[in-house]
Amino acid sequence: VERFEVATRARRALVDVTRDVEAACARLGLRDGAAMVYVPHTTAGVLINEGYDPAVAEDLLAALEALLPRGPFRHTEGNSDAHAASVLVGASALVPVAEGRLRLGRWQRVFLCEFDGPRTREVWVAGLGGR
Amino acid sequence: VERFEVATRARRALVDVTRDVEAACARLGLRDGAAMVYVPHTTAGVLINEGYDPAVAEDLLAALEALLPRGPFRHTEGNSDAHAASVLVGASALVPVAEGRLRLGRWQRVFLCEFDGPRTREVWVAGLGGR
Amino acid sequence: VERFEVATRARRALVDVTRDVEAACARLGLRDGAAMVYVPHTTAGVLINEGYDPAVAEDLLAALEALLPRGPFRHTEGNSDAHAASVLVGASALVPVAEGRLRLGRWQRVFLCEFDGPRTREVWVAGLGGR
Repeated sequence: VERFEVATRARRALVDVTRDVEAACARLGLRDGAAMVYVPHTTAGVLINEGYDPAVAEDLLAALEALLPRGPFRHTEGNSDAHAASVLVGASALVPVAEGRLRLGRWQRVFLCEFDGPRTREVWVAGLGGR
Repeated sequence: VERFEVATRARRALVDVTRDVEAACARLGLRDGAAMVYVPHTTAGVLINEGYDPAVAEDLLAALEALLPRGPFRHTEGNSDAHAASVLVGASALVPVAEGRLRLGRWQRVFLCEFDGPRTREVWVAGLGGR
Repeated sequence: VERFEVATRARRALVDVTRDVEAACARLGLRDGAAMVYVPHTTAGVLINEGYDPAVAEDLLAALEALLPRGPFRHTEGNSDAHAASVLVGASALVPVAEGRLRLGRWQRVFLCEFDGPRTREVWVAGLGGR
């Protein structure tokens, strides 16, 4: 498993980590199959969506924020909205890999999702081999 | 990676692609592990849910539509609700494979999710080998 | 594929199955890669989130319940809210495995999500090998 860190700058943010994932796959020597991009956190997530127009990421964060309650919560840290956003997005995403390259769609990028920052987050990348 | 295309007929639709996924797995020669079903699009997705009663798919689309805002959006294409639905559902799903066959639960089927159609969509299927 | 069963006790519940997943991985002999934790059901799911404070699980269930409509539904079983919750959470989750051990983050646990119980649910665990 390869790892890298991302320092986020706001409570909620989407950070394009596609190049870091590509570099991790190169270090793994992954040729074919899929890269699992995983966050070991419970108030963060990983998603794949449009990276060309940055306004999409802003709209995605606004949509998630509008969906989720601000409390009252039973969890006394008061950040259960961030836990719920993490669950909706998921702790991992899979990216196809062929001939040693990430095979995203034309407009797709891989984003680390921060829902309770700013913090320094870890991202793990593991290669799942094709058959 | 094997590929097939799906022509969708409405802005929002769930299309049962289970047989296409089975055929793609047969072409891959996948015996054991999982099939990754992936869409290279940012306003579409893949989900696994009930395919027996078509009313479930209609209720799922209605629930997603009720959840997501219609704007205003910063993204000038005006389809950020479709991007958000894609994120909630996810760009991929994993299906267990054993002895060369998809191992879905009794009522489960694999659906391509269209959120900004009608369009022709690609679906990619990759085999992730079991150990 | 290894399997185990979980008897849920309420209509909606999150059940920590991390130890069962660990035991299944040990039976599989999985050394490196990822464990795919999969439910063959259409009104259940699998998620990874905080397991330290049980109040988080309660807040997550409350957030999902607040999100989803109670009907009217076209599906005559009347449980389409449970199908929708299953879709939002997903039918599977991936857990990194290295040197024969699950590699969850410090606060992460694996939960079976029940959205239409009480029922006896199956959980399947398959090893996806690393490369």
